[in-house]
Amino acid sequence: MAKTSPGNCFEDFRIGQVIRHATPRTVTTGDVALYTGLFGARFAVQSSDAFAKAIGYPRAPVDDLLVFHIVFGKTVPDVSLNAVANLGYAGCYFRQPVFPGDTLSALSEVIGLKENSSRKTGIVYVRTTGYKDEGIPVLEYVRWVMVRKRDEAAPAPGDHVPRLPTVLDPNVLGEACPPIELPAYDTALSGSPYRFGDYEVGERIDHVDGITVEEAEHQIATRLYQNTARIHFNQYNEGKGRFGRRLIYGGHVISLARALSFNGLANAFHIAAINGGRHVAPLFAGRTVFAWSEVLAKAQVPGREDVAALRLRTIATADRPCADFPLKSGDDYDPSVLLDLDYWVLMPR
Amino acid sequence: MAKTSPGNCFEDFRIGQVIRHATPRTVTTGDVALYTGLFGARFAVQSSDAFAKAIGYPRAPVDDLLVFHIVFGKTVPDVSLNAVANLGYAGCYFRQPVFPGDTLSALSEVIGLKENSSRKTGIVYVRTTGYKDEGIPVLEYVRWVMVRKRDEAAPAPGDHVPRLPTVLDPNVLGEACPPIELPAYDTALSGSPYRFGDYEVGERIDHVDGITVEEAEHQIATRLYQNTARIHFNQYNEGKGRFGRRLIYGGHVISLARALSFNGLANAFHIAAINGGRHVAPLFAGRTVFAWSEVLAKAQVPGREDVAALRLRTIATADRPCADFPLKSGDDYDPSVLLDLDYWVLMPR
Amino acid sequence: MAKTSPGNCFEDFRIGQVIRHATPRTVTTGDVALYTGLFGARFAVQSSDAFAKAIGYPRAPVDDLLVFHIVFGKTVPDVSLNAVANLGYAGCYFRQPVFPGDTLSALSEVIGLKENSSRKTGIVYVRTTGYKDEGIPVLEYVRWVMVRKRDEAAPAPGDHVPRLPTVLDPNVLGEACPPIELPAYDTALSGSPYRFGDYEVGERIDHVDGITVEEAEHQIATRLYQNTARIHFNQYNEGKGRFGRRLIYGGHVISLARALSFNGLANAFHIAAINGGRHVAPLFAGRTVFAWSEVLAKAQVPGREDVAALRLRTIATADRPCADFPLKSGDDYDPSVLLDLDYWVLMPR
Repeated sequence: MAKTSPGNCFEDFRIGQVIRHATPRTVTTGDVALYTGLFGARFAVQSSDAFAKAIGYPRAPVDDLLVFHIVFGKTVPDVSLNAVANLGYAGCYFRQPVFPGDTLSALSEVIGLKENSSRKTGIVYVRTTGYKDEGIPVLEYVRWVMVRKRDEAAPAPGDHVPRLPTVLDPNVLGEACPPIELPAYDTALSGSPYRFGDYEVGERIDHVDGITVEEAEHQIATRLYQNTARIHFNQYNEGKGRFGRRLIYGGHVISLARALSFNGLANAFHIAAINGGRHVAPLFAGRTVFAWSEVLAKAQVPGREDVAALRLRTIATADRPCADFPLKSGDDYDPSVLLDLDYWVLMPR
Repeated sequence: MAKTSPGNCFEDFRIGQVIRHATPRTVTTGDVALYTGLFGARFAVQSSDAFAKAIGYPRAPVDDLLVFHIVFGKTVPDVSLNAVANLGYAGCYFRQPVFPGDTLSALSEVIGLKENSSRKTGIVYVRTTGYKDEGIPVLEYVRWVMVRKRDEAAPAPGDHVPRLPTVLDPNVLGEACPPIELPAYDTALSGSPYRFGDYEVGERIDHVDGITVEEAEHQIATRLYQNTARIHFNQYNEGKGRFGRRLIYGGHVISLARALSFNGLANAFHIAAINGGRHVAPLFAGRTVFAWSEVLAKAQVPGREDVAALRLRTIATADRPCADFPLKSGDDYDPSVLLDLDYWVLMPR
Repeated sequence: MAKTSPGNCFEDFRIGQVIRHATPRTVTTGDVALYTGLFGARFAVQSSDAFAKAIGYPRAPVDDLLVFHIVFGKTVPDVSLNAVANLGYAGCYFRQPVFPGDTLSALSEVIGLKENSSRKTGIVYVRTTGYKDEGIPVLEYVRWVMVRKRDEAAPAPGDHVPRLPTVLDPNVLGEACPPIELPAYDTALSGSPYRFGDYEVGERIDHVDGITVEEAEHQIATRLYQNTARIHFNQYNEGKGRFGRRLIYGGHVISLARALSFNGLANAFHIAAINGGRHVAPLFAGRTVFAWSEVLAKAQVPGREDVAALRLRTIATADRPCADFPLKSGDDYDPSVLLDLDYWVLMPR
């Protein structure tokens, strides 16, 4: 009997099915250092225990996206090993800060299934929850992927498309952020004087800098998350494929864009939620990633006088500086666009 | 007087000579994180403090091969700086788990010397022991290397070929593994339902996935072990050499094969011993490593009801998927084969 | 209003101006591990908690150059984002050891300004101090850079060239080094029998080995320091520039030379001060770095019987072994020379 995991095909899923994912993972300051080396983020709260403590955290929390990537990575062998395409995510929000020493695990529930008309594939919707020790939820999101069927003739295992939020309600946004001591939030150390009140809806920010990605970098990052998706690591196979190259994990672009966004959004210290994200085009090694952001909305977080939320749209591009905010070319995306990400960040008021 | 170390030549060794190696090295969660980023292993015991504690470890132990590589690295400046070839290892077994915070050091005893008929080189056999704080042995192995003579006319410093075990006795296999709480060993979290009893002698497992190696990756790994062998780092010299390329440290292939073997052997959580290994061909950056394994034997470990041992042979290849278990081509190895490794792993019963 | 930082132009600086830099940074064993993986240094004091404790440190201190790079990185966005050239440093000395867990921050004072005759640029001199928790200075240095003017017609903001030391006085050299238990300093573990007394002024040491640098390596290193200088990361821009390549951070060469210098200077366990350094030529990925050193002077450290100081000049080259100590070619540097560094190290007596 084969002992290797073939992953699940479309007909293997059931509505309501709950999948506990391998492998639990203790996050350490080692992961944090490597993440810093790979992306170079400079947000003071995640970089400095002293800064984090001064404003009310017990110590520097782990970068929100590092938590996301580790949780996401665990779901790959069960959910998307036979995926044809990652179609989207929605309703992602952070519920507790994660600190070095916490052990992360993940569980997914199948909340939707829809066979495609070709009968060769179907769309699987899962709600994934990341936990830290003793079952405390730290992160929740819905993701949907197009998965191959093993057997075209197999009956569809279900037929339900869940209703998904297009934007997270501001009242969930503060859960992973402790009360912030505003007088201790030192904007010389954080790198920018601009707080919540300084941003306006519709404002656009070119994040100016660019980062060229090397194969070793995205491979190290994606393995750090124990994400096993084959297309990121196997040049022998991918060299024969559609692109002739290893595809870079889409989350790598998100982390690069977030690191670049420091220049212009230095006080957006916490990603509270990701409303949705679209990987418009694949990224390959050797290309240089740029980014710009637009403020889509501003919101008070109920019960919070210390922080408030900006809803941002961040666009990442390849080999295309963003001084003129590239986005569309006619009805389509500009060919340089890699990522279109809609998310909520918290800023001090 | 030259203060750089020229390394030892064949005539510098003596039977019974004991060499205390530089540099002691404290292993940290930083090393663990970087090792994860470089190889992407997913064994739950090494990945999660919570999982490790639940089954009886005080916390997640350091990956056995990371311990091996660090100990091995220390011996290079004294044993193999003037090596022409690494010929083999034998009798490698792990005697204590290593945890972040432990400081590793290494000591070698010369146990054999045999001049080659050319009188230009000789074979040096050393038994190396790795220690952690206060002299606790964590690892022991024998290695033999062909070393240049400084002066062909020099008399051979000894003439003795030690008897070496071809396979470690199962009664040494449990030393580095605490008693395991089997009920707490959660096979959903560990990534596979297959335990010791599910494997059969002669069973072959294709580990399916492939990993392409980049120059930066093997250099970072090999420096992490403070292994100074010149052929891994110096393109200026190697570019003029036989291969025109930097050679990748053989241990890198072992670690890649081990990480790949998770797919099919997820519960083989501990390498208890390495019976022997042969680096059949060199690996170069840009190539994609695949692997497959055969179960050579099964053994009870005396006094242990919790775990038992599989003797595995793992073959790693370059640019050659392993669905058909490539090994020999006539009397020789298949030209794709990089590594032929014979070792014992422990699995829960 | 633009929220991205444009960096300071020459006319933005004032003599006496004090700049508190973002982002504070807690150094961890993760940073130490990654630094080891990137450079492979083998100095026992920094590598082993056990060795460090035995001789009088509370634990292994963080490598002096890692501290330097992190502090330096913080100054880039404020001081040298619009730099045309890094001209030099002087008067760099270490005042306290840094340990994992310490949070580093940096502050600079403008101590000199000199407009160039072209009126397009000016030279800015800053004295930077790195601090650890609660304002303890760990490092101090002067750096001067040529910075663009925004407006050629703007008046020069000052006109003063500070007097700088060409060599640090030995009486500042011991500050970051606790009293050393000489009997516990084990030269088998440290990798060399040669102590302070074994070195002579004028002695030259070829460090023998070479290390080839990959793009991923210098990018990961430079991001680890949160150094944002654009020329290191952005191939899209640099591909159109003078070199057509990303320039490697000059500090990367210093760290490589220091790691190479272990072979010949294994007991030079602490860089106590950097008298001055010149980046003679840029380094690009793919080149192999070699190094050699000359003992410029020897000095007692006032009040210290345990350690004494060697003043070293270390030369790093690209693609040029250093057996014949390459330095000058006529009046100019040999074209292979990358770095000419003058510094004080401490050694056990």
